[in-house]
Amino acid sequence: MERNRTETQFPAVGDGSGFAHTDSFYKEELQLALRNRGMPLEGLRYPITPAGMHYLLIHYDIPEVNPGAWRLKIAGRVSRPLALALDEIRKRPARTLAVTLECAGNGRALFAPRRISQPWFLEAVGTAEWTGTPLCALLEEAGLGREVAEIVFTGLDQGIEGSEVQYYQRSLSLSEAMREEVLLAYAMNGEPLPPQHGFPLRLLVPGWYGMTSVKWLDRIEAVAEPFQGFQMLRTYRYARSADDLGEPVTLIRVRALMIPPGIPDFLTRARVLEAGPVTLAGRAWAGRLGVSRVEVSVNAGVTWSDAELAEPVSAHAWRGWSFRWNASPGRHTLCARATDSEGGVQPREEQWNFGGYGNNMVQQVDVIVE
Amino acid sequence: MERNRTETQFPAVGDGSGFAHTDSFYKEELQLALRNRGMPLEGLRYPITPAGMHYLLIHYDIPEVNPGAWRLKIAGRVSRPLALALDEIRKRPARTLAVTLECAGNGRALFAPRRISQPWFLEAVGTAEWTGTPLCALLEEAGLGREVAEIVFTGLDQGIEGSEVQYYQRSLSLSEAMREEVLLAYAMNGEPLPPQHGFPLRLLVPGWYGMTSVKWLDRIEAVAEPFQGFQMLRTYRYARSADDLGEPVTLIRVRALMIPPGIPDFLTRARVLEAGPVTLAGRAWAGRLGVSRVEVSVNAGVTWSDAELAEPVSAHAWRGWSFRWNASPGRHTLCARATDSEGGVQPREEQWNFGGYGNNMVQQVDVIVE
Repeated sequence: MERNRTETQFPAVGDGSGFAHTDSFYKEELQLALRNRGMPLEGLRYPITPAGMHYLLIHYDIPEVNPGAWRLKIAGRVSRPLALALDEIRKRPARTLAVTLECAGNGRALFAPRRISQPWFLEAVGTAEWTGTPLCALLEEAGLGREVAEIVFTGLDQGIEGSEVQYYQRSLSLSEAMREEVLLAYAMNGEPLPPQHGFPLRLLVPGWYGMTSVKWLDRIEAVAEPFQGFQMLRTYRYARSADDLGEPVTLIRVRALMIPPGIPDFLTRARVLEAGPVTLAGRAWAGRLGVSRVEVSVNAGVTWSDAELAEPVSAHAWRGWSFRWNASPGRHTLCARATDSEGGVQPREEQWNFGGYGNNMVQQVDVIVE
Repeated sequence: MERNRTETQFPAVGDGSGFAHTDSFYKEELQLALRNRGMPLEGLRYPITPAGMHYLLIHYDIPEVNPGAWRLKIAGRVSRPLALALDEIRKRPARTLAVTLECAGNGRALFAPRRISQPWFLEAVGTAEWTGTPLCALLEEAGLGREVAEIVFTGLDQGIEGSEVQYYQRSLSLSEAMREEVLLAYAMNGEPLPPQHGFPLRLLVPGWYGMTSVKWLDRIEAVAEPFQGFQMLRTYRYARSADDLGEPVTLIRVRALMIPPGIPDFLTRARVLEAGPVTLAGRAWAGRLGVSRVEVSVNAGVTWSDAELAEPVSAHAWRGWSFRWNASPGRHTLCARATDSEGGVQPREEQWNFGGYGNNMVQQVDVIVE
């Protein structure tokens, strides 16, 4: 697979438009859902998502990496190219940050029509304590040329998208890459990265949607021109159509989510709870911004009341919220919505886009009170 | 939710028959798939499935357990009822076993018609090193009455199935429960159980499909009559219809799975590889039996050749297999099938049953060689 295009035609999914106009899901969407793991929303109860419960989005296969032979290459427009073993990276100054990561496609399956891809409802989120060494110091050590505009990150996971045979690649502008909180992370919740989270080393960019935090890092390259790779230009864009380049998907948008209260019906996941006082609770986050307010509605958004806010888990992570509700018998639609520190508030209606990104529409949780 | 029935009617899924007759999937199936995690099949490369990659099937919600207040109750027809703290259980003789667990519903989504439930293709499997204390010694300490026929295990996860409000409960015959390899497990791969795998304590029954290994154990009860709970009589049966009681689902059936070779197309997961020699590899297991043979076909089952077998990871776990193939350009359907130590071999055709259990039909992997 040396060449970077394949002539193979893959079977079209659905009507070939790339969109589903039905409430049912294609086999290809289910296949992705069974690989790419969501965090069950009761996982919102943990400030730090337990190991194995964090969401996962893996474009291709989880690669097999021999950590002894592996080297991180830092190359391109640098005066001192580097090739570092894992031990050398672990000996450098370490920093541990609690970071909330969310997939840019979280909420995609709620859009209508729905782009045929990983069909998340609302579960593509998690918070972990990531340990690594700051990227900026390594870039300084390599000696960036004055002409450097972007840093390109290449993973070891290989696959095909849009007939391009590719390793997963994303870039950051130099100023974003040099931010002090950007890490080359080798540990998650105090343990070496699991294979599915990027062993032996991944990029970790707090505040940005997860596609930015390239896993299984192989190479970091300083370039003089904006990187035109597939994952920059052909996906992860807020676009109106296939012909519209749109704007790049970048920072995580403000969102609150609620732990579904009561108990579930196994198949439908309908929620049943007893009448009387109940504490509704969840978490809220806003990418690089803070969350200034969370409101709860127990009548499908007709009226709203302020929830109580807990301190953020960290400057880069979600904060808890809670709301005391006296549940009366009947059916209710519960909602939570967050406001970020710049006054941005979650929309009630979907903000549709072609790729199904950044859908931070207010969550609705239907409950039956008996 | 003190009463054990609910009057609430939950919306029917599909045509109300409980079955899907289409190639597309219902929202309710996708919801389950996004909660219940599969092991991506490249995970077969690891003898012990890395933390967080093991399959998960959770009937209701992951319960929140305060380990300080938690006690394991051993009750019923015993002369010395016990209530044990986690520390007391951890001080008892410990045993660590590598065990392959598989969901009884693995392969359900390949049946036609398909029972509407968790829609697994083939990814509901994993192998972990479980550490715990043998159940038999604890039962002996509690002093079983002579009349005891079964042991009932109750978890802390609560939900609704078939209009019954229930905690998840399963039983084992006394002789099965007293087998030396049956553990009360508090650690997985050397770490305390993660919440989603049953923290603080779960049952672990090697050889049986996963529904037997009750998570979040609350109570163990010795009873004189066969237990008639929902999860014994109304699910986990090899039945022909809703009216047919059928036979209980018990031990894991023989199966081989292959790591899909080559690289994937992102959306369709179609596999592309280069012409030339390639090693096909995977794992095979057979519940309580050994695997005596794995055969590979590179022509959709027209002809078969023996694969090489590695030693089993343990007496209770899968064994590796590999097969050298000289891939020629074109499209091929690869298959692997295992034979157990009693001569049982995986079927080529589905052995349909009402609940969608035990589907160990031979895997087919379509590949495109360029």
